[in-house]
Amino acid sequence: MVRVGIGDDLAVLDWPSGLLLAGVDQCLDGVHVDSKVHSPRAIGKKATNRSLSDCAGMGSRPVAALIAAALPSGCGLDYAKEIYFGAQEAAAAQRCAIIGGDTASWGYPLAVSVTVLGQSAGAGPILRGTARPGDRLYVSGSLGGSVLGRHMTFAPRIELGVRLAENGGVHAMMDISDGLSRDLPRLLGPEGSALGAVIDARAVPIHSDAEELSRRDGRPALEHALHDGEDYELLVAGTELPMPGLIEIGAVTATPGIILEVDGKRTILQPLGWQHRL
Amino acid sequence: MVRVGIGDDLAVLDWPSGLLLAGVDQCLDGVHVDSKVHSPRAIGKKATNRSLSDCAGMGSRPVAALIAAALPSGCGLDYAKEIYFGAQEAAAAQRCAIIGGDTASWGYPLAVSVTVLGQSAGAGPILRGTARPGDRLYVSGSLGGSVLGRHMTFAPRIELGVRLAENGGVHAMMDISDGLSRDLPRLLGPEGSALGAVIDARAVPIHSDAEELSRRDGRPALEHALHDGEDYELLVAGTELPMPGLIEIGAVTATPGIILEVDGKRTILQPLGWQHRL
Repeated sequence: MVRVGIGDDLAVLDWPSGLLLAGVDQCLDGVHVDSKVHSPRAIGKKATNRSLSDCAGMGSRPVAALIAAALPSGCGLDYAKEIYFGAQEAAAAQRCAIIGGDTASWGYPLAVSVTVLGQSAGAGPILRGTARPGDRLYVSGSLGGSVLGRHMTFAPRIELGVRLAENGGVHAMMDISDGLSRDLPRLLGPEGSALGAVIDARAVPIHSDAEELSRRDGRPALEHALHDGEDYELLVAGTELPMPGLIEIGAVTATPGIILEVDGKRTILQPLGWQHRL
Repeated sequence: MVRVGIGDDLAVLDWPSGLLLAGVDQCLDGVHVDSKVHSPRAIGKKATNRSLSDCAGMGSRPVAALIAAALPSGCGLDYAKEIYFGAQEAAAAQRCAIIGGDTASWGYPLAVSVTVLGQSAGAGPILRGTARPGDRLYVSGSLGGSVLGRHMTFAPRIELGVRLAENGGVHAMMDISDGLSRDLPRLLGPEGSALGAVIDARAVPIHSDAEELSRRDGRPALEHALHDGEDYELLVAGTELPMPGLIEIGAVTATPGIILEVDGKRTILQPLGWQHRL
């Protein structure tokens, strides 16, 4: 499929007629990764998996990826190569080819961006903003506390995403990168959407990392599960989805607002997840 | 053609069966642009035109672009928007859609990367490394001194690139971004290529900016034309190409090495153009 890879002005692919999905994500030192702690290989892997996870969120298969790296001057060629090898490893695990790249050096920390090109797997990509009142809400795994390490090592949910796209009952889907409380409103539609949701607090799967973090900082583990970012699990709205790998957490409502139900008491769930401030 | 634009996990395009060209380029503050001097709109425009110029170098048409920006924290939403508007302006001038983006803030200078997706225009994309001994060498405009301002304002040579791709006489092509002396060997093939070239110094078109720079720094204007980067003109190898917009500067030889002919004297042309040191 790759006719010309890295080395020319542009890479050249054979692309079958149909849909092309494309997106870009960044990994910045001090924001998404910490180069003092994380190896360049782990950084390249995470940067790539972040973009591949967007494919999962659409129910599509990643086909090709391009990586751009702004490298701190003096980091050395091996450091740059390790980033590439990490990207390569993450991409290869999903049968995705790295087809292009750009490296440049500058006097500041590492900034990596990865563009992914995907193909729709089933009937079509699964979008956001297309949920329906009465839809059940699901997540693909337990949430919270990824900062303890999982944010570097997660595996994008490509296979599950593709299986879900092939299931007619899925109406809307995305990956959770900024935390459930911030991403759920995005699943329901652009600001001003007529839809809302009720989340059953007892049903939210809490990761053991969230519990560990709770022991350290005294905040309830549920809060970590609801608000922490970088879970990279799928968030799905649909009907008739009792499927291995999915955990039901609530339902879509015909009235705006996200409601959290705790022991029969209903409160508004405020988005506290990760937000970039410009 | 764009079914889903910015706002979902990925953008969705209808793509006709055939070739897909893709590449990524960066624009870093202090390296490719200077945010103290250049407006965010000019930076967005340049970042995008750098990638579009790669399409020109392949003889392809840009169809869609994705832009990622690492923004200095506190720069403000308007600054981010201006970068986007600049990108939009550059893309729209070539009927290219901006389909995706990612912004993040951090405590360091601006880093922008632009991925471009292109379609082959003529018989196929024109690659590097496919020149033949005896080919004439051409450039699409005068060279040197772009640092005086042209590096921000150049227009990618898309139309000329497409016309050349449709001309069977073109064997190899690229855009000159790192300077003629550094990019010409790349046109001839990967390191160790059996091909070389002879450049006629009198034929190299010298930009008035190179002359101005020569007056300021005392270096010959020809040196600026041969070695300065960021011309974004096309460098073409082929036969029977007397075409408006092309200037013949030499020929491809069957022996390795780049020779500069000055008043009948031949010297080796060393690559002195822009190189990132890691």
